[in-house]
Amino acid sequence: MNFDQQLTAYKNQVEAALNALPMENAPEPLKSAMRYSLLSGGKRLRGCLTLAACEAAGGNTADALPFACAVEMIHAYSLIHDDLPAMDNDTLRRGKPTNHVVYGEAVAILAGDGLLTHAFEVMAASRHPMAFRALGELARAAGIGGMLRGQTLDVTLEGTVPDISTVRDIHLGKTAALLTAPVAAGLILAGADETLLCAGRAYGTHLGLAFQIVDDLLDIEGDVALLGKSTGKDIQEGKLTWPACVGVPQARKDAESHIAAAVEALAPFGEKADFLRALARATLHRVQ
Amino acid sequence: MNFDQQLTAYKNQVEAALNALPMENAPEPLKSAMRYSLLSGGKRLRGCLTLAACEAAGGNTADALPFACAVEMIHAYSLIHDDLPAMDNDTLRRGKPTNHVVYGEAVAILAGDGLLTHAFEVMAASRHPMAFRALGELARAAGIGGMLRGQTLDVTLEGTVPDISTVRDIHLGKTAALLTAPVAAGLILAGADETLLCAGRAYGTHLGLAFQIVDDLLDIEGDVALLGKSTGKDIQEGKLTWPACVGVPQARKDAESHIAAAVEALAPFGEKADFLRALARATLHRVQ
Repeated sequence: MNFDQQLTAYKNQVEAALNALPMENAPEPLKSAMRYSLLSGGKRLRGCLTLAACEAAGGNTADALPFACAVEMIHAYSLIHDDLPAMDNDTLRRGKPTNHVVYGEAVAILAGDGLLTHAFEVMAASRHPMAFRALGELARAAGIGGMLRGQTLDVTLEGTVPDISTVRDIHLGKTAALLTAPVAAGLILAGADETLLCAGRAYGTHLGLAFQIVDDLLDIEGDVALLGKSTGKDIQEGKLTWPACVGVPQARKDAESHIAAAVEALAPFGEKADFLRALARATLHRVQ
Repeated sequence: MNFDQQLTAYKNQVEAALNALPMENAPEPLKSAMRYSLLSGGKRLRGCLTLAACEAAGGNTADALPFACAVEMIHAYSLIHDDLPAMDNDTLRRGKPTNHVVYGEAVAILAGDGLLTHAFEVMAASRHPMAFRALGELARAAGIGGMLRGQTLDVTLEGTVPDISTVRDIHLGKTAALLTAPVAAGLILAGADETLLCAGRAYGTHLGLAFQIVDDLLDIEGDVALLGKSTGKDIQEGKLTWPACVGVPQARKDAESHIAAAVEALAPFGEKADFLRALARATLHRVQ
């Protein structure tokens, strides 16, 4: 399989597992609201990273699948809450109305809470001997020292003068934490040693920074139709972005060097990490 | 120690552990907002239940303490989100302004998300051999078949004609799930067998139903100053309550019979469960 075929195979595996998640105890409209955002056709980057990391360390993707679903649920919850009127007040996401536009604010808040909690419920149902440790990785990444740290800085520092160390702090929390944790979880479930785990974390961190810098650049230069969301919002709202600190040309260079560092970090894996390398390179050329 | 002394001892243990929770990675105002609601002087009923259940099965409260903290964090998060303008729109809680009144809606949403996620982070840091199973109990209880199921029904059925089976469904999810799970978690951490676990769950369910029926009654008959929150809101908002279905006198009788059933369920524990029995009886006479 070439890179594109492998990416599609991972993505289909994650998509099928998400579709099949048991949610029969959720009453309506909670269940529909959760599924609306969870199954709205994202790239499944975080889920694919979980499976790919697991295979790169010689593991079985079936072991990693519940954790791939969990990280996608955590990502989906964060987008629902992020889009709320009290937060970024976004009405469009992946070309579709945001959750609160369709289901109202009350149900959107509950749907976010539901996806976050269900992520842990699904992980807790795993019988893999390393499940508890992998769960801890995702909890920390989603938590107050990870994603929620980034979100809080992002929301509260809007409109202040941007400096690169603050922007880095925001991007590390808001984006890199939840790209690093699935890599770490996949490796842990494969029984990887500390050398591989350390390499995987470095990969995830650089990939995450590059990913968010590219996201910042797309908000300036992207095409609304291709992105499925509005552009120019960051500047309008006074968001602290990478190009706002260093300018567009330097931001492009920084994204490239973080991708180079991500690729380099994978050395201990040998050719088993070729997919992860190609995934990092593809990040530079994504449209959404 | 008599009942009151033991209750105070458990409560102080939980309070001290909550105060000492590591949150140094949370940026301001996230950290303050989380601590504002978490340390606002609740009864710590759920935390005390965790410790008491653990001791009733011969366990050590030190093992149960992270889980007592976790259930209190989950409870605190649910109150923050429940009080939001889009949900119950409450401005007063335990005699103090609600989280969003003090910190604004955006930070209140993040503080709720932070407490929920931190609960799992704290549990995931436990090295107890039964930690993973105990975590699963809390995840399911807080999830879409438990508390979030109850919250959703509560929010979406407001103003409809109340019937007792729906109200029971709401109360089981909204209240009983998060009183049963700490009992089950405490027992699991003590290594209790299936007989004790089954008895503990029955206790928690009856206690939870009685607790919520008393809560419904207090909203009709309670004293604002003693309760620290507004009364009469349930009727005003068309909430589905137990007395609205069966009338006040029958609701009182139902609360009493659920307490009797809770006490009876504890038979397999013998006198080791005397504290849990006294706690159930005290529920009938609580003022807040």
